[in-house]
Amino acid sequence: MSGNGFGTLFRVTSFGESHGPAIGCVVDGCPPRLPLAEADIQVWLDRRRPGQSRFTTQRREPDRVQILSGVFEGLSTGAPIGLLIVNEDARSKDYSAIKDTFRPGHADFTYQTKYGIRDYRGGGRSSARETAMRVAAGAIARRVLGEGMRIRGALVQVGPHRIERACWDWAEVERNPFWSPDAGAAERWAEFLDDVRKDGSSAGGIVEVVADGVPAGLGAPVFDRLDADLAKALMSIPAVKGVEIGAGFAAAAMSGPEHNDALRMQDGRVTFLSNNAGGVLGGITTGQPLIARLAVKPTSSVLTPQPTVTAQGADAEIATKGRHDPCVAIRAVPVAEAMVALVLADHLLRHRAQCGG
Amino acid sequence: MSGNGFGTLFRVTSFGESHGPAIGCVVDGCPPRLPLAEADIQVWLDRRRPGQSRFTTQRREPDRVQILSGVFEGLSTGAPIGLLIVNEDARSKDYSAIKDTFRPGHADFTYQTKYGIRDYRGGGRSSARETAMRVAAGAIARRVLGEGMRIRGALVQVGPHRIERACWDWAEVERNPFWSPDAGAAERWAEFLDDVRKDGSSAGGIVEVVADGVPAGLGAPVFDRLDADLAKALMSIPAVKGVEIGAGFAAAAMSGPEHNDALRMQDGRVTFLSNNAGGVLGGITTGQPLIARLAVKPTSSVLTPQPTVTAQGADAEIATKGRHDPCVAIRAVPVAEAMVALVLADHLLRHRAQCGG
Amino acid sequence: MSGNGFGTLFRVTSFGESHGPAIGCVVDGCPPRLPLAEADIQVWLDRRRPGQSRFTTQRREPDRVQILSGVFEGLSTGAPIGLLIVNEDARSKDYSAIKDTFRPGHADFTYQTKYGIRDYRGGGRSSARETAMRVAAGAIARRVLGEGMRIRGALVQVGPHRIERACWDWAEVERNPFWSPDAGAAERWAEFLDDVRKDGSSAGGIVEVVADGVPAGLGAPVFDRLDADLAKALMSIPAVKGVEIGAGFAAAAMSGPEHNDALRMQDGRVTFLSNNAGGVLGGITTGQPLIARLAVKPTSSVLTPQPTVTAQGADAEIATKGRHDPCVAIRAVPVAEAMVALVLADHLLRHRAQCGG
Amino acid sequence: MSGNGFGTLFRVTSFGESHGPAIGCVVDGCPPRLPLAEADIQVWLDRRRPGQSRFTTQRREPDRVQILSGVFEGLSTGAPIGLLIVNEDARSKDYSAIKDTFRPGHADFTYQTKYGIRDYRGGGRSSARETAMRVAAGAIARRVLGEGMRIRGALVQVGPHRIERACWDWAEVERNPFWSPDAGAAERWAEFLDDVRKDGSSAGGIVEVVADGVPAGLGAPVFDRLDADLAKALMSIPAVKGVEIGAGFAAAAMSGPEHNDALRMQDGRVTFLSNNAGGVLGGITTGQPLIARLAVKPTSSVLTPQPTVTAQGADAEIATKGRHDPCVAIRAVPVAEAMVALVLADHLLRHRAQCGG
Repeated sequence: MSGNGFGTLFRVTSFGESHGPAIGCVVDGCPPRLPLAEADIQVWLDRRRPGQSRFTTQRREPDRVQILSGVFEGLSTGAPIGLLIVNEDARSKDYSAIKDTFRPGHADFTYQTKYGIRDYRGGGRSSARETAMRVAAGAIARRVLGEGMRIRGALVQVGPHRIERACWDWAEVERNPFWSPDAGAAERWAEFLDDVRKDGSSAGGIVEVVADGVPAGLGAPVFDRLDADLAKALMSIPAVKGVEIGAGFAAAAMSGPEHNDALRMQDGRVTFLSNNAGGVLGGITTGQPLIARLAVKPTSSVLTPQPTVTAQGADAEIATKGRHDPCVAIRAVPVAEAMVALVLADHLLRHRAQCGG
Repeated sequence: MSGNGFGTLFRVTSFGESHGPAIGCVVDGCPPRLPLAEADIQVWLDRRRPGQSRFTTQRREPDRVQILSGVFEGLSTGAPIGLLIVNEDARSKDYSAIKDTFRPGHADFTYQTKYGIRDYRGGGRSSARETAMRVAAGAIARRVLGEGMRIRGALVQVGPHRIERACWDWAEVERNPFWSPDAGAAERWAEFLDDVRKDGSSAGGIVEVVADGVPAGLGAPVFDRLDADLAKALMSIPAVKGVEIGAGFAAAAMSGPEHNDALRMQDGRVTFLSNNAGGVLGGITTGQPLIARLAVKPTSSVLTPQPTVTAQGADAEIATKGRHDPCVAIRAVPVAEAMVALVLADHLLRHRAQCGG
Repeated sequence: MSGNGFGTLFRVTSFGESHGPAIGCVVDGCPPRLPLAEADIQVWLDRRRPGQSRFTTQRREPDRVQILSGVFEGLSTGAPIGLLIVNEDARSKDYSAIKDTFRPGHADFTYQTKYGIRDYRGGGRSSARETAMRVAAGAIARRVLGEGMRIRGALVQVGPHRIERACWDWAEVERNPFWSPDAGAAERWAEFLDDVRKDGSSAGGIVEVVADGVPAGLGAPVFDRLDADLAKALMSIPAVKGVEIGAGFAAAAMSGPEHNDALRMQDGRVTFLSNNAGGVLGGITTGQPLIARLAVKPTSSVLTPQPTVTAQGADAEIATKGRHDPCVAIRAVPVAEAMVALVLADHLLRHRAQCGG
Repeated sequence: MSGNGFGTLFRVTSFGESHGPAIGCVVDGCPPRLPLAEADIQVWLDRRRPGQSRFTTQRREPDRVQILSGVFEGLSTGAPIGLLIVNEDARSKDYSAIKDTFRPGHADFTYQTKYGIRDYRGGGRSSARETAMRVAAGAIARRVLGEGMRIRGALVQVGPHRIERACWDWAEVERNPFWSPDAGAAERWAEFLDDVRKDGSSAGGIVEVVADGVPAGLGAPVFDRLDADLAKALMSIPAVKGVEIGAGFAAAAMSGPEHNDALRMQDGRVTFLSNNAGGVLGGITTGQPLIARLAVKPTSSVLTPQPTVTAQGADAEIATKGRHDPCVAIRAVPVAEAMVALVLADHLLRHRAQCGG
């Protein structure tokens, strides 16, 4: 258990490097008799796939997922589900230059220091390639959650440019290459990122994930709070440097009466008059939409030469070449959605275990 | 495992309610032959203890910790360490009013919905009282980390008022009731919080924790990254709504060349020219100081009456009375330090297991 | 997590040494709203308590359990249940002689070797005293299982003397000091053990535990089979050297047609015509009674002097004095029952999580 | 985590059904820089492979293992190791007859009851086919343990026929198709099993595993004792009904002085004059050889027609046809070795984590 598994009851264990023969995972704990086919997973993988616009890497990964076990005649059996994606576009030759030189912002130095060895080809295990398996496992988690829960992500900031919250339109998210809920912002980002690319630079961004239809009562005090598990899930995505729930960091500047979400009965049901909590109180869902945001740092690989050192202990300069996303926050959107789905599926089963029904 | 345990190898499992007979925890996995006495734990508990200034609750909790096991003749034995604190100042009568009325911002509604029952006295299990055991366990974690690692927290924002980074002085942290590293900010906060208290309101804040002397190589890809485990640890503290590492949310607006920490050889050692990463790359420590910040929401209990509902489904108003912290972020400082210590101790043992020495 | 916790969802974490101030445990994951009082636990502890006949140690342990948390107004709340038993009859002076000499058959040498330190008073953490917390936690597990499941243990062999299976009478178990289901065997054992005691020797035994009313479907392939988890649970009891399920070791000499339990419909339900499986097929319960047996070695502490070595590396002789059970298998009966209850409660919750209702 | 993972730090998670496209596993937690190639794993798989004599099933499974990740330039990298074996000889047509009829002694009824669905082809997930991944993971565990530890298994009983302990010769184990350490017993078993096959029947057996070179100090009180983890590991192997350590069930009939292993200094080292403990005291290794035995029930699939029921609730008869092992205990030998290796590797890392070096 050196960290490649996630979840207590609904648990995914992944493996694979950027330029090895394949990546894959095992999803253990899936309830039986859920309809599941490769197409149900592929549809989500296709959203994450690179090369769909000029704003993501041009690496070609068809990312064709195979279900190797745990599904029989179109239904999950309760046995572990093995998933595999063969690596097809692995150009090892691109990476020989970085064999002995640590790329700033990457995990080259830390992997080498920790393990005394590293698969340097395309970042090896530290490559964001592993996130494909998060998305695949997340697709199964969505099946567990059922139609009633909807998990949607959007990009709300690219570089210093934020969306206008008043312009939020979920339908717009599917219409631009940024998952932007604000059509105007998408246009501004396109322009901004074209400049970024021309400069051989890169940009960061902020992703927001909203889960609707989450029942009240999911989560578990005191360490495995739903928001704590979300924080871990989202911070574990490559390049993420911050996570907030509901009002998040802005809550620090608010007063209690301003921040507290008042309760009122409406149509015989408990409702909240605001959602600064982001759908969680005391680590347990309130029944309101779950709202999480994550900050993604700018892509570490840039064309600009940067000071670094070699494995042999000499100063050096490095300018990473090749196919890279100018803003990895874009492709982080489907990954973040998947991680939220994994957390919710796990806590749904955990709740059912302890509290029934 | 319904969420009251934390850590993989160095693991704390806690129990206890605000107004029950006692709170306690078991620390399992502690290495043997470490010097350990009750006083080594008490010193940290005393920092968290309320009633030390007019800016924290006046509840009197001597919080006298007892070591029940795992220590023999002043040394840890490798057996689990049982810790106990008897609850002494539990005025149950204060809380009968909230038996059937959900306090906004608290976990009353979510506990009741999840479990169909709740110990309403002082918040029961959801009370921040449980954080005393985090601090106690954190004191043992510090022993595991040894003298070479130093974990210090500071309050860097109260309400909308931030410290001046240029005025940062670690020595100042011990000299004011806010753990402020900026003497001027402490004065401004005192004035601000006096007003907040007079208004029957409350304020939030931001805590920063810095760990020095952390060796490179701690952490584990891909889900149990050190920063992911930190995010969970810190988000699990009551009232925390956001966590960030290094540059954090600000990273979203930076360019790659600006954000990447350049490397250079200095005196035969690899060093970084900046620390936007906050001491972690690819989920593994770089050897630089580990830097985390957490946003704490304003205290939910306020004197101002607020709209809410009763367990019986009627609209109501509630104004929580009694002894409360105007700004819980102050007392979150030693708790946040403790959680960072727990994460580091766990990963130190995990690293030793997989990679040796 | 150095081994002092048991269970995945219904999890007990214990602490405490034979001669420390107290022993205790935390039971996490208990479903809410179960009726629970100290008396419900005490009744099972009283069965394990020593000093009830001349065949168990005369050490006086009132073993009065306190519930410190997780129960409110007579019902479990879903929060962790803290249990504590204060050690009252801890005569430390009895044990100074064994400080530097390893008792054969005990864990003195292995603890010293592993940890480089040990609490030698009464065996410290390796004392069977810790089994009191297994019994206490098992009492809560029985509440989770409900009235429909009944877990009963019996002693079926003492030294070389077995019961007559034809004489099995569950009512008899409560009428003799051995938990023997065969009155005749109880008489023979009394005589045999009187001789054993006079000789300053000790005897082993075999315990059988039967769980009735266990529904079909509990358990989980392939590693966490119900019988695998039972094997671990029972082998973890001090002095146990073997575990078998159903026909057990005798199955090795049987033929397939002889061993296989045939199925038949009876009154519209699937039934089995025999139970060589002991209630488990493929790691999952069949709905038949669950049957497990465990072999308990003879008490290691004997009056006869035995060759050993000292911590300083010198040959020595040791004859352990003081109050000891001539046959620890007797007191292993309630402990074995408790461990079966813990395994079943955990798997009941696990089944509910994955498969519902 | 529905049971398809094993181990705390050195952890294997497996997937795959008898007649699905492939079986596989992920080994997480492997130390870095260990030499590892497919051939190192294949050599152990070849020992388990069926069809090597007339005493094992004639199903042809080349069982060619592929390493998909975690190894770079011949060395482990510390990243998870993905292993895959493509199923080549999956004759689905053989199994349509058992689609709706439960085979006695098999897991057909319990899987159907638990999950409401089952992959009936060749037993699906409950097939012993999954044990190939145990052997593969065990091969990696051996690398972790190093040359100094040697884990060897032998068959010591087939049906009612035991070996002569005086004739034990480890070299003989490699010379007969039964892994028998006694050449005479191997001849008797050949004759016996020929009769069993002619009768369309099957036989059980007992396997013994011995681990030499295990250092003192591995294991962890009180629940995760080394012997408890071994018991779980071995009982989780399909068809195993009993596990014993050292003197095992025979210990029940021994006296304390007879069973206790006396200690003596020899050449400046602590030694034991006997090994009734089987190498474990108090759940921690003594430094003596680790000795475990497991009872394997007779193969459930027999040609003799047996009474059973259908999924539709009608009485029926079934005689399983096709290729089956007359005595599955034979092929359990390499599987049992692998499980012992997995337990030892896990506890080696756990010990290093808590106690260092």
